Amino acid sequence: MDVSSLPRVVVVGGGFAGLWATRALARDRVRITLVDRSNHHLFQPLLYQVATAGLSAPDIAAPLRHILRGQRNVEVRLADVEAVDAAAGCIRLDDGTDLAYDYLLLAAGSTHAYFGNDQWAAHAPGLKTLDDALGIRRRVLLAFERAEAESDPAKRAAWLDFAIIGGGPTGVELAGTLAEIARHTLRDEFRNIDPASARVRLIEAGPRVLASFPDALSERARRQLERLGVEVLTGTPVTAIDASGYRLGDRFMPSRTVLWAAGVAASPLARSLGVPLDRAGRVPVESDLGVPGQPRIFVAGDLAAVTRPDGQPVPGVAPAAKQMGRHVAQAIRARIGGHAAPAFGYRDWGNLATIGRMAAVVHFGRIKLSGVLAWWFWLLVHILFLIGFRNRVVVMFNWTWAYWSYQRAARIIFGKGGSGGT
Amino acid sequence: MDVSSLPRVVVVGGGFAGLWATRALARDRVRITLVDRSNHHLFQPLLYQVATAGLSAPDIAAPLRHILRGQRNVEVRLADVEAVDAAAGCIRLDDGTDLAYDYLLLAAGSTHAYFGNDQWAAHAPGLKTLDDALGIRRRVLLAFERAEAESDPAKRAAWLDFAIIGGGPTGVELAGTLAEIARHTLRDEFRNIDPASARVRLIEAGPRVLASFPDALSERARRQLERLGVEVLTGTPVTAIDASGYRLGDRFMPSRTVLWAAGVAASPLARSLGVPLDRAGRVPVESDLGVPGQPRIFVAGDLAAVTRPDGQPVPGVAPAAKQMGRHVAQAIRARIGGHAAPAFGYRDWGNLATIGRMAAVVHFGRIKLSGVLAWWFWLLVHILFLIGFRNRVVVMFNWTWAYWSYQRAARIIFGKGGSGGT
Repeated sequence: MDVSSLPRVVVVGGGFAGLWATRALARDRVRITLVDRSNHHLFQPLLYQVATAGLSAPDIAAPLRHILRGQRNVEVRLADVEAVDAAAGCIRLDDGTDLAYDYLLLAAGSTHAYFGNDQWAAHAPGLKTLDDALGIRRRVLLAFERAEAESDPAKRAAWLDFAIIGGGPTGVELAGTLAEIARHTLRDEFRNIDPASARVRLIEAGPRVLASFPDALSERARRQLERLGVEVLTGTPVTAIDASGYRLGDRFMPSRTVLWAAGVAASPLARSLGVPLDRAGRVPVESDLGVPGQPRIFVAGDLAAVTRPDGQPVPGVAPAAKQMGRHVAQAIRARIGGHAAPAFGYRDWGNLATIGRMAAVVHFGRIKLSGVLAWWFWLLVHILFLIGFRNRVVVMFNWTWAYWSYQRAARIIFGKGGSGGT
Repeated sequence: MDVSSLPRVVVVGGGFAGLWATRALARDRVRITLVDRSNHHLFQPLLYQVATAGLSAPDIAAPLRHILRGQRNVEVRLADVEAVDAAAGCIRLDDGTDLAYDYLLLAAGSTHAYFGNDQWAAHAPGLKTLDDALGIRRRVLLAFERAEAESDPAKRAAWLDFAIIGGGPTGVELAGTLAEIARHTLRDEFRNIDPASARVRLIEAGPRVLASFPDALSERARRQLERLGVEVLTGTPVTAIDASGYRLGDRFMPSRTVLWAAGVAASPLARSLGVPLDRAGRVPVESDLGVPGQPRIFVAGDLAAVTRPDGQPVPGVAPAAKQMGRHVAQAIRARIGGHAAPAFGYRDWGNLATIGRMAAVVHFGRIKLSGVLAWWFWLLVHILFLIGFRNRVVVMFNWTWAYWSYQRAARIIFGKGGSGGT
């Protein structure tokens, strides 16, 4: 059989949805092209560890080519996708070439959203990519350096003020870890400042942190954060952010380090599909994850708006993305065989979030855990699911080391020789 | 005793010379300020491993503050030094402040030198800092990506052409490792190119590679390189470099990846001392490593031009820098006590260079080794001297893993989401 007559499957995005779909098609008679703008699959649940200098960037990333080297029906392409041309059946890449498809999976994920305040982006970076993580690491480490060199007490206090906007899992992780860095990691290292005097605030507009968890676990997460030294402000919308601080209602808070964990929006690529999107820019898909009116196009992962039979949305978490990816592989297989694709059913494995050293919350079914036990559970799950044996071993070693020494392995400032701007 | 009356020692540079001098003064009644433009001490002998994706940047770097946290007579300052004002007895920092000293150690190291061809810098990056290493890693990995996406055979060949200019230890290490990446690491990962067809050339203007070694070892190094798949060109000066390739005499060689390992020059900071410098911009120091006519200023490491009693120069290697650093600590102690400083004596521990997998050369005293035995020796020495227990363990693990799997742990492209320019 001539290979060039096989159906062409194009997968956009090498995250959990795209990669799992690609792998699930390993034994199918198709030609797959996986397109990603970066050369690696990223284990996003641990990205905050790179931002807070606990892990090196390569510890949580694996080259897509390497993961897929043995799967001969896949070609990996490093490129940015500029648009989908559904009428012509192709996607347009940033190097000007068009890539034709018989079946397309759009799994391009999400990006930060500043809800109409795009000018905040420069002052309050978000955390989605490895480059974001290294930028945040740089900002945080340099803030302590600037404080050490600053003689004016008010300016020094602003350098020692850290604000995390958004009380979801990422915000909670960042706040808990920053408090640990200030109180433990940097102990004894400075001569003019006491890093433990740094202020770490977690600011949430809604009534509670970790809103996707039951009330009781939110409350326990809050108490655990406070025990780690984080000030938790709920019901407190941020009304302005600039280089010198942020505003909560009438109060201006001087701060040189504001991090954004408050909102995500779907990849703008969804707009080129020409179908109605939901408020977050996601594609409301049909029961088989197909795009309405586009029998050859599927959407999975954070870009897909999927509703469960009970009316609840499928959450934007890694296990959901993997399940959707595998389902799309099955749907494409069905279509190629001339069958109707089955409906997607989400299997909820529960919800877990880490807060800091020995602190986490876990919710699955009727089980609600918090504290030490939840933390061990979280650790186990995250190491188990890391891609690649090497990464698992290195991450486990780094964490054991970090745990006993309170040290963080990756406290290295890159860029401009470490002395550039903030 | 009032601390503020203690002699002020300012050390510029946290490399081997500066850091070893600082540590040697741990029990002295002095106030030390260590100034560096980056926040970490870098284990430079393994920098090529970061450039070639074998190690993560944090594996070979440790925060200066952390190394020195227990030494209470030291303050670490993250800043660029702009000038030395010997008349006023102070140095000028890039944040506009002046730092006064009673004794100054200038150990600012060296930078790339393009011998009057500064326009080559953009096309042929050198390797001195972690940022340099990550930039080279990015270039090399992207070159294979571009080749995979390129359909024009001539353009594709230029993407698969790697030239390393300079046959010293850094050039040899880079060439040997690039050949291994092309032949082994990337095997099976591409669909349109054969990475093993990549051309790796090591180009040296002088008559042989590793000129600081005896003739016989140079010759063995050359043969080992050729066995790894490197083309070695000696007696071949490069006469031009641009974005599309380089020129050797009349021949233009199309190449998209040219790396510079041909020359270093001393830090330009030396010029502000107002004393005559040698051709490489280094400071010819007196026998005690003091600057002629400047009894309060010492120079150590790559910035110092030191001649041994037999007329041979002290080489620019890590053991020499450490010895000089320790000597300057002793000299400062002597001056404070009103004594004359002793003369510096260099203890030559030998010379070693790695070439690639199981290939290295070692020379000390009458012993000349090459091949597997030299490689094991090189490995042992480099792991032993890595700063910090954690780094040693992680590096050992990464190398063992890399050795058995032919994989390289850090093949992650950063910057512009991995899809930007080259």
